[in-house]
Amino acid sequence: MAGYSIWTVGGFFLLGALLGCEYATCNLIRNSPESLFPKSSTTKLKDLDSPKYGDAEEVIKKLIERLGSSKISRTQTSLDAHSDAYFSSDHPTKDQRPVAVIYPESTNEVSIIMRLCHDYRVPVVPFTGGTSLEGNFIPTRQGICIDLKKMDRVLELHPEDLDVKVQAALGWQKLAEILNDYDLIFGPDPGPGACIGGMVSTSCSGPNAARWGTMKENVISLTVVLADGTIIKTKRRPRKSAAGYNLTGLFIGSEGTLGIVTEATLKLNVKAKFENVAVVSFSNIADAGRAVARFVQEGVQLDAMELLDDKMMHYVNVSGKTLMKYDETPTLMLKFGGISEEAVQFQIKSVQSICQDNNNADFKFAATEKDKVELWNARKVALLATIDYGRKYIDQDIQVWATDVAVPISRLCECLQETKEEMTKVGLAGAIVGHVGDGNYHAMILFKKEDREKTAQVVQHMIDRALAVDGTVTGEHGVGWGKKPYLVKEVSPDVIDLMRKIKMALDPYRILNPDKVFAIDPRERVKY
Amino acid sequence: MAGYSIWTVGGFFLLGALLGCEYATCNLIRNSPESLFPKSSTTKLKDLDSPKYGDAEEVIKKLIERLGSSKISRTQTSLDAHSDAYFSSDHPTKDQRPVAVIYPESTNEVSIIMRLCHDYRVPVVPFTGGTSLEGNFIPTRQGICIDLKKMDRVLELHPEDLDVKVQAALGWQKLAEILNDYDLIFGPDPGPGACIGGMVSTSCSGPNAARWGTMKENVISLTVVLADGTIIKTKRRPRKSAAGYNLTGLFIGSEGTLGIVTEATLKLNVKAKFENVAVVSFSNIADAGRAVARFVQEGVQLDAMELLDDKMMHYVNVSGKTLMKYDETPTLMLKFGGISEEAVQFQIKSVQSICQDNNNADFKFAATEKDKVELWNARKVALLATIDYGRKYIDQDIQVWATDVAVPISRLCECLQETKEEMTKVGLAGAIVGHVGDGNYHAMILFKKEDREKTAQVVQHMIDRALAVDGTVTGEHGVGWGKKPYLVKEVSPDVIDLMRKIKMALDPYRILNPDKVFAIDPRERVKY
Repeated sequence: MAGYSIWTVGGFFLLGALLGCEYATCNLIRNSPESLFPKSSTTKLKDLDSPKYGDAEEVIKKLIERLGSSKISRTQTSLDAHSDAYFSSDHPTKDQRPVAVIYPESTNEVSIIMRLCHDYRVPVVPFTGGTSLEGNFIPTRQGICIDLKKMDRVLELHPEDLDVKVQAALGWQKLAEILNDYDLIFGPDPGPGACIGGMVSTSCSGPNAARWGTMKENVISLTVVLADGTIIKTKRRPRKSAAGYNLTGLFIGSEGTLGIVTEATLKLNVKAKFENVAVVSFSNIADAGRAVARFVQEGVQLDAMELLDDKMMHYVNVSGKTLMKYDETPTLMLKFGGISEEAVQFQIKSVQSICQDNNNADFKFAATEKDKVELWNARKVALLATIDYGRKYIDQDIQVWATDVAVPISRLCECLQETKEEMTKVGLAGAIVGHVGDGNYHAMILFKKEDREKTAQVVQHMIDRALAVDGTVTGEHGVGWGKKPYLVKEVSPDVIDLMRKIKMALDPYRILNPDKVFAIDPRERVKY
Repeated sequence: MAGYSIWTVGGFFLLGALLGCEYATCNLIRNSPESLFPKSSTTKLKDLDSPKYGDAEEVIKKLIERLGSSKISRTQTSLDAHSDAYFSSDHPTKDQRPVAVIYPESTNEVSIIMRLCHDYRVPVVPFTGGTSLEGNFIPTRQGICIDLKKMDRVLELHPEDLDVKVQAALGWQKLAEILNDYDLIFGPDPGPGACIGGMVSTSCSGPNAARWGTMKENVISLTVVLADGTIIKTKRRPRKSAAGYNLTGLFIGSEGTLGIVTEATLKLNVKAKFENVAVVSFSNIADAGRAVARFVQEGVQLDAMELLDDKMMHYVNVSGKTLMKYDETPTLMLKFGGISEEAVQFQIKSVQSICQDNNNADFKFAATEKDKVELWNARKVALLATIDYGRKYIDQDIQVWATDVAVPISRLCECLQETKEEMTKVGLAGAIVGHVGDGNYHAMILFKKEDREKTAQVVQHMIDRALAVDGTVTGEHGVGWGKKPYLVKEVSPDVIDLMRKIKMALDPYRILNPDKVFAIDPRERVKY
């Protein structure tokens, strides 16, 4: 019995199978604390071997047989488009490309693909809008990209129950158009182009979140294809349920590392019957911040509450994307909603009085429907105006680093102000927008290619500042690839080891969006 | 090499350890679909052996050494009180008692207990208020009960950020008292006596949920002791975060089967500056239901919206627990809140007009502060009034089966009405209360001991009716022990197998609140 041959180990497997497969080892561990190999509730990176992946070509061959070749694209343009995006803070290396993009048309087809990828250990990156910002879909291990774009329909709309069932690649803007006819809205409103599947993955939100919550508060149920191809539907239709583990909640924010979301049932809200918009300028951010604190503390319920800094207002003005010109000072953009004109007017009056108490310079609100659209326009064009400015006045080949953090509400303005000052100090242009109602703010930093390192430093300090006040390294963009080194600064190593335990349980071959959120390979440079 | 001795298997373990412990088997599985033992994303009950538990006395001996004997109680009274509750639908057998109740005073002490229980494979049931209704804390495997009652403090209150950090055994009513001084409220308001730890476990809610959401929407972060004693804190303080898996969400509703919650950071809301209450009676439930549908569809925002049936109003009247007498017909009890008297008056007017359109018989709202308390009293005393009635008019030894389901909002009234009719038909007294804003309703069925089977039938039909309209078997009480047979009727076996996979990953020896939510032992009668 010198050495332990595969045959001996194979014998163990057979014994294991007889005893009840994967937990058979339980029977063999003596029931005492002296057990040689106690199991734990977490998985440390150092206890893993590197993942071993199989040959994607084998899977593609079988997929052509099963789904037909028309659902598979291997053109360079397609592979490139599924690896990177201009707005992303992190970009893939040249060889980080999928070997093929598959376009399934149903949950069953996604299941067929996953079963094969699981069997052959082939990495998979799910893809919908491609608008994520932290390198969330970089194909670090090549493999296959599943683009769900053919699954973009509304499946069931129940206006009387305020819910809707949609497929993963439906864009939120398209959904908003459809719901508009029913006087309904879906809460989360991230950047243009985002689709429900990706929105679930990053637990995104947007300006409306202070009123309606993030994806975590707005999804009722999900249809998910697991790593091994198993199809599950997490819940049924009621808006509340205490039936078993909150799997819906687990998949929201898991960035495609635990399963592929193919359908979602979403909570809807009744659109405010009467709406208005106000644009309030302040001479400094501190005053704006104090006004916001008062709104929050007095329970004034706004439908959106956005802070745009002076730079942002300047970029909007020079962009020519709006008809009106705005004051180029820190500006609050507010949305009001209510069941009557009077209710809205009353809110406006309360807010106006709070703003006056805090030295606001100007207070405009809309008199007509057209005014409302026009007034809100600055918020709408903010990101594009920033990039336009960069291209026109800084460098045609300007880059943008769009990133966010969130902090306890009362610490928002100081954090935002310090980041602003650092940008000025190191000579980087850019703007800041805050979802001030929930302590979340975005920096859109413009930089020339050679200034990437300097920009990364500013971002790192922005994150450090958030962490120093008990904040989070990402409010609504997710961790992806880019923020991975920071997650362990926010939560303890044990928390990440717990996430890894769940990952290994659900995706034992580590094929689902590998290397995102936390490390799954001890050979990787990021050790958590 | 005839037979596979423990020594041979031990050899495999050693090899496994050299290769990297628990995933070492990966290396040995050939990278092809022909692998003999492919891993999956789920765990089927049939693939498990029965759990093997160790000797609790060993743990107790060590705990006395570590924590001192004063934190351990072994009196029969104490063991009984931690196994059952009058209001629970399911009761333990005589031998389902813990062998000891431990009262830790800190998260660290909970961790010490869990490390020992994990090492010795001793079952643990966590306990706070003991108010759960579905046998959620029955000690099916004896073992140890951890009662957190000494951990009942507010640790940090941040009124300016609208959050509070509390220990698990703080009662929500005590919290409400403390917050009242700051004009703040915490949303979820379940039955009296419930504590935050248990409320997290069952993902409870209450009348306020239609306005403020359930526990899922109101918890920011949790401190949890895992099965092996590892302490984790799921998040930091911001109200939104997209930093890694939503572990907070996973623990909410997991009923103590994945970890023991010791601390929670909660979202707070600003209390409405002006409040009012209305009591609206209807001649039938259908009219009340139509009125509610209109509130929902028109986006009238109420702070609470409860439907009490005629029986309930009768029990309240005969209880003598209220000063006023109510109409004994289906009654809506409504709470209004706003930033001004006018705003509240405006809401009342809108609601009144909708009620008139739907043939309401009477509409009362409060003129004074005292009136508000008095008007709402019927809702407050509902459960106790029901039991009093049963004891006085039916049987001194009356039992109550308090259970709930939730359905899509538009189907609530028909489901509720049918359950009501069945109760009358089979001759069972009892009342129905609906949290009509979110499609959740409760039946409180009074029964004599000999009618338990008949009552169980009515409950089963109530559940079947909910499932028939795409509802859930439990809206806010959890699955516990009592609703376990029904979970698989709501979700597919694969969903339960996924829950079981997560359970086995986090609690490999199945020591945490065993046998709750779903089966963990193939020898159990419930097969999911």
